[in-house]
Amino acid sequence: MSFKVIKRSPDSKARLGLLKTFHGEIETPAFMPVGTQATVKSLSPDDLINCGAQIILSNTYHLYLRPGHELIRDFGGLHKFMSWDLPILTDSGGFQVYSLAPLSKIKEGGVEFRSHIDGSSHFFSPEKVIYIQECLGSDIMMCLDVCLPYPSREEEVSWAVELTTRWGRRSLEARTRNELLLFAIIQGGMYKKWREKSAIDLLSYDFDGYAIGGLSVGEPKEVMLSVIDYTRPMIPDKYPVYVMGVGTPEDLVECVARGVDMFDCVLPTRNARNGMLFTSFGKLVIKNACYKNDPRPIDPDCDCYTCRNFSRAYLRHLYVSRELLAYRLNTIHNIYYFLNLVKQMRQAIKDGNFEKFRQSFYKRRES
Amino acid sequence: MSFKVIKRSPDSKARLGLLKTFHGEIETPAFMPVGTQATVKSLSPDDLINCGAQIILSNTYHLYLRPGHELIRDFGGLHKFMSWDLPILTDSGGFQVYSLAPLSKIKEGGVEFRSHIDGSSHFFSPEKVIYIQECLGSDIMMCLDVCLPYPSREEEVSWAVELTTRWGRRSLEARTRNELLLFAIIQGGMYKKWREKSAIDLLSYDFDGYAIGGLSVGEPKEVMLSVIDYTRPMIPDKYPVYVMGVGTPEDLVECVARGVDMFDCVLPTRNARNGMLFTSFGKLVIKNACYKNDPRPIDPDCDCYTCRNFSRAYLRHLYVSRELLAYRLNTIHNIYYFLNLVKQMRQAIKDGNFEKFRQSFYKRRES
Repeated sequence: MSFKVIKRSPDSKARLGLLKTFHGEIETPAFMPVGTQATVKSLSPDDLINCGAQIILSNTYHLYLRPGHELIRDFGGLHKFMSWDLPILTDSGGFQVYSLAPLSKIKEGGVEFRSHIDGSSHFFSPEKVIYIQECLGSDIMMCLDVCLPYPSREEEVSWAVELTTRWGRRSLEARTRNELLLFAIIQGGMYKKWREKSAIDLLSYDFDGYAIGGLSVGEPKEVMLSVIDYTRPMIPDKYPVYVMGVGTPEDLVECVARGVDMFDCVLPTRNARNGMLFTSFGKLVIKNACYKNDPRPIDPDCDCYTCRNFSRAYLRHLYVSRELLAYRLNTIHNIYYFLNLVKQMRQAIKDGNFEKFRQSFYKRRES
Repeated sequence: MSFKVIKRSPDSKARLGLLKTFHGEIETPAFMPVGTQATVKSLSPDDLINCGAQIILSNTYHLYLRPGHELIRDFGGLHKFMSWDLPILTDSGGFQVYSLAPLSKIKEGGVEFRSHIDGSSHFFSPEKVIYIQECLGSDIMMCLDVCLPYPSREEEVSWAVELTTRWGRRSLEARTRNELLLFAIIQGGMYKKWREKSAIDLLSYDFDGYAIGGLSVGEPKEVMLSVIDYTRPMIPDKYPVYVMGVGTPEDLVECVARGVDMFDCVLPTRNARNGMLFTSFGKLVIKNACYKNDPRPIDPDCDCYTCRNFSRAYLRHLYVSRELLAYRLNTIHNIYYFLNLVKQMRQAIKDGNFEKFRQSFYKRRES
């Protein structure tokens, strides 16, 4: 098995794990910065290392369209192409087809879609998506899945679940590089019954890990957590569990408390570019006039490069002046915040006091 | 004296020098990356250090308008505000008023202008410009000058020269912080007679250094070099000589050969953001289709972070995808190129073979 649980929290379902991949081990709970187009927006590989990243996520859909998976393969894979030596997980494109290519048509064989760049027509089969990810050399490949909007009717959800399972089986059969892990994606919308069906069917194939997909599609937060509440226990403890596209710092804490191991989200990077910064005491909008003369770092408790070197006043000046450095310094801070949050959770689990950590996490945000 | 000539080239007027400032020494010939708004666009202070920067240039005009010189003073000066510990030279605003604020009115007392940001009215006197630069804590302050377009009639040039001299004297009298160097700016357009008048008059005040201003205002390259040819010898060798707003790599080599010590130019940073990269063999436009599959670095002879880690194909992908990382990686390369060029010239002067360097510089560009 590539995944090992190192320690369990005595007072929650949180757990400390180690996931072995072709490019090295990842400690879990892990947060994966999103590098959609073979770059985590505004950051260089050494910025990511300095922020504590152990793994990043990239996108099959985007890299297939530009610069092309075969071009990347000819460079020796995505790691060499982007100069990143640590593990990479690639999303299968199921979510991007859902969110970026609204004219897509899902059939038994795969999905027809139009490029969001130039409108050209393309077709993804489960086999092709595995081929693309093997060209990229992803340490963790994801199966093509059918992702539905919220809300969706039960007959659509049941159809998506059944098709996602058949595509999962085909993905497994299409795999030729066994050193690259393959995760299945559990669908089922907000229906416990269909989450269960999806989980049971996909578990029968013994994938390397299981993702809970189809969340962060517009559902209320309580609904998302309730789906995780009932879906997470459907997955045996020996597998790594990955909740896709989640979430806020609060979401991460709540999901870890429920036994989730892996996360990815554009929130830290996208919000950084909009001047919204995460701190131990909540959000900070850097353009606000109250920071004009503020000599303090974003978060006095933060050890990131940005907080060690720059004041809120300087960061506000950069942001208001639309200086490129603003995007990078803000992104470094937000990514560091997310990576430090999962690091603190790992330490808390190790120390056997996750529940105490969780309480203090909320307490600092209230003060 | 703050400036010392260390060595002279036997076969040209090139010279190796050392300029002592409040924040440390600068080896000359020196190139100063331009950090208009308290940031060299897209680079962090440690990027600049890694590129070999010993001094940067910032702008009185821009910082006065935003975030304000008194705000920066209250932070302990520009160095602390932007987290840069090495020397800073600030331009006086004369050139910015000329280039960014076309509705400006120049009077005996100073210049009235409108902000390019919000159209608000402002007034710069020579005294105020010194006050602003002392608030910023610039290691090298520049006197407010009258910069004219090319071509200009002789009566305008003579008026600009005389006024620039009177403003120079007033700047000197306004100075209260003697630890900060003050350079005068020699004007005179493309008229030898008026360059001479400007030089003689300003030299009578014994400034810490002399700049040749009013170049890079649209004149042909031969005209610029001929102005330097006859103006440079008007300045005694004991002073550091700074040609403002120049230039291309070729310009730098030609000016150093003529005894110029200091340069600043937006070319490396601005061109980087437009995908135009400088190399030992000439220019490279990264978006060109021929680089789509090119695994080579921008310049195989370059040791910058970008060239050590990334291929032309990856840089083209970032540029075409409008990824923020493109701007930084391109800027790192171009700034490194310019700083390495002056470093190589310093070494050549030290080794007594500047003329040989100059010939091989051109030879590599032809091959």
